[in-house]
Amino acid sequence: MNIIEIIAKKRDNKELTKEEITFFVKGVTDGSIPDYQTAALLMAIFLNGMTDRETADLTLAMADSGERVDLSSVNGLTVDKHSTGGVGDKTTLIAVPIAAALGAHTAKMSGRALGHTGGTVDKLESIPGFSTAIEPDRFIDIINKTGAAMIGQSKDIAAADKKLYALRDVTSTVESIPLITSSIMSKKIASGSDCIVLDVKCGSGAFMKTSDDAQKLAQAMLRIGKMCGKNITALITNMDIPLGNMVGNTLEVIEAVKVLKGEQKGDLYDLCIELGANMYSLTSSKPLEECRTLAVEAVESGRAFEKLKEIVSAQGGDVSYLDDTSKLERSRYCFEVLSECEGYISSINCEAVGHVSNMLGAGRQKKEDTIDHSAGIELCKKTGSHVNKGEVLARLYTNNKEKLEASQEKYLSAIVFSDKQPECEPLIYMILN
Amino acid sequence: MNIIEIIAKKRDNKELTKEEITFFVKGVTDGSIPDYQTAALLMAIFLNGMTDRETADLTLAMADSGERVDLSSVNGLTVDKHSTGGVGDKTTLIAVPIAAALGAHTAKMSGRALGHTGGTVDKLESIPGFSTAIEPDRFIDIINKTGAAMIGQSKDIAAADKKLYALRDVTSTVESIPLITSSIMSKKIASGSDCIVLDVKCGSGAFMKTSDDAQKLAQAMLRIGKMCGKNITALITNMDIPLGNMVGNTLEVIEAVKVLKGEQKGDLYDLCIELGANMYSLTSSKPLEECRTLAVEAVESGRAFEKLKEIVSAQGGDVSYLDDTSKLERSRYCFEVLSECEGYISSINCEAVGHVSNMLGAGRQKKEDTIDHSAGIELCKKTGSHVNKGEVLARLYTNNKEKLEASQEKYLSAIVFSDKQPECEPLIYMILN
Repeated sequence: MNIIEIIAKKRDNKELTKEEITFFVKGVTDGSIPDYQTAALLMAIFLNGMTDRETADLTLAMADSGERVDLSSVNGLTVDKHSTGGVGDKTTLIAVPIAAALGAHTAKMSGRALGHTGGTVDKLESIPGFSTAIEPDRFIDIINKTGAAMIGQSKDIAAADKKLYALRDVTSTVESIPLITSSIMSKKIASGSDCIVLDVKCGSGAFMKTSDDAQKLAQAMLRIGKMCGKNITALITNMDIPLGNMVGNTLEVIEAVKVLKGEQKGDLYDLCIELGANMYSLTSSKPLEECRTLAVEAVESGRAFEKLKEIVSAQGGDVSYLDDTSKLERSRYCFEVLSECEGYISSINCEAVGHVSNMLGAGRQKKEDTIDHSAGIELCKKTGSHVNKGEVLARLYTNNKEKLEASQEKYLSAIVFSDKQPECEPLIYMILN
Repeated sequence: MNIIEIIAKKRDNKELTKEEITFFVKGVTDGSIPDYQTAALLMAIFLNGMTDRETADLTLAMADSGERVDLSSVNGLTVDKHSTGGVGDKTTLIAVPIAAALGAHTAKMSGRALGHTGGTVDKLESIPGFSTAIEPDRFIDIINKTGAAMIGQSKDIAAADKKLYALRDVTSTVESIPLITSSIMSKKIASGSDCIVLDVKCGSGAFMKTSDDAQKLAQAMLRIGKMCGKNITALITNMDIPLGNMVGNTLEVIEAVKVLKGEQKGDLYDLCIELGANMYSLTSSKPLEECRTLAVEAVESGRAFEKLKEIVSAQGGDVSYLDDTSKLERSRYCFEVLSECEGYISSINCEAVGHVSNMLGAGRQKKEDTIDHSAGIELCKKTGSHVNKGEVLARLYTNNKEKLEASQEKYLSAIVFSDKQPECEPLIYMILN
């Protein structure tokens, strides 16, 4: 087999065979195919697409390019939850304890912050003592004991994806449905869970800007998941507004605790109830409506918050910081962004908010960057709110005073005002399965 | 400017600005843009194309990426001839002396054999003493004295093209009209001639397999040439049959001498008269019909052959080898390929014939390979001929006996027989200007 001929075939919009796709993924993984040939093929795939069969073969070849996690010793069906990434998305910290409180087993492997989106692992590490680097045997033990464990993704999961993703990032071949599908689903398949709940984000803070594109991506992932024997559901949800009011690591832990304690309602609470209910519904086969009621009860009764503390404790975290979140590290500077005009907020550029949070120290531009856990943003006014001149739009938290001025400016430019109250977009566009 | 954004723009089928194209070509030339980003952009250009304006800007940026030859001290208008490459194409050795005999000044820079096509420089070096590495001042002197000089292309001409071509070759992005156009025209523009005659080959032995594609390529090159102020003509010619009867370096010199002496008529002679006439017509502004008559007279009178000897002598070659070509080196082995069936030859796979010639030692697969000047093929029966079983189809010449069997087999498989005499394809499809 010859990579030049494989590139030419996809360039000419022909369907690649399973053998050709496997040859490509092996060559990427072992380094025998140089990056320039991979880049040419990625662009040809971006522009000419892939059939479901090709995407499934690519996904499986990528899943087989590294370690496969064996969850067979977990008692009962396991469920995984995956978000395509957004700003302020701390749903894992809330939905996983809800699902575990109901009885679902969750083997959650998460990533770190990169680009404008945050990472669950960084958020969890805001809790003193909490370890996300846990050996496979202990990982299974914790799941069997508490119902869930939340760790960092092994470096060996879907090895080809790491190389492909790094190359896609610098060759403008990220926003391709077969490439996103195979990247996400190869990791989900290698991670070994029986059931998968996908949270496909759509809007200014997501890869998919329109509901139509998000739907296409969700449907592609559903088809591939089913081809691989997974019990799978996809939610298409709004990422035109940051989720909840907090962006940043410690800040998001504080907010997650508030939601789990039943002290904060709104978009974040609603989405977490929906995600937790869907996760439990897949593993229990109970009707979704019943699972929603049970999820609300798990929060109201305090069982979901107790479950979070159980998981945190099992992973070495100090739960006194959850009982009293005012003990968590606070940043040195807090700066209020005041509105310069009066009117309704008609939109917030979600990606820009993510970038502001990074500027304040909450994220990283390169993998090697260190982060400031206490840095971030508290959104005081979100889309649809009426604002008077001089009112507080947001609070910026940071330990690096020098970035405050530019952050404030960038934050203001991300907000669009209007005379009329904008129509309210739904939080959950649809649920597909 | 940012190469990732430039790739995304072309990926989205948008027109790149002159500044973006110049930034790309500079980055390729100085190595600041890595090959994988160049490969992604080349594939996006291949699939989404370029406007004439973009192609012209790419061509000029590439022409400016290396040395530009200054031909201003040549007396009178200079003309260049370029063939897109074929099998058995020794037209430079014949058409340049014809045009020079009529009074056109030709500053010819040629390449070496690569892939299945031969190279004029290798052919000329079959003549003992002939030097194709000549300093710029002497190059101009020879043109002013004899009317023409034929040298190897400077390494510094269109430096970006070398890198881009090498990358296109291994990323399946060769057969793209804007990329071929910019590759050829950047070298022609940097080579400095006022007039250009393009011989765009079409058929099984050429990059462009159909007359339609060849016409598109020719028209693109004409438009770019005119935008750059060149006096330019393009011939679209048949490359479904190897040109003339000889393929190989010394063998092609022998055939060129025969044609210039008026001893061989047919496709090669006809095409060289047409090319020589067009070259002279562009520099003299005389009507093409008159130039054709003059070209025929130049051959018949022996002036064209005398002109070849003048040029060869000026470049250090021993003309006694042209007066008596039997003195030229012959290969040790000559093997006759006999027909295994009776019928008409309906087609010859031209590219395969080029590969057989390479197997015999006449070409190179890699730049570093050395070549066997005396190796090659004499085609005894061409397309349209009736052949009896056992008749000689071709003679294979080589110094490497071991390759004979495989060469013979490959040659036979390149010939297609039919019961009926095939229709004769024209030699020259059209002349565009």
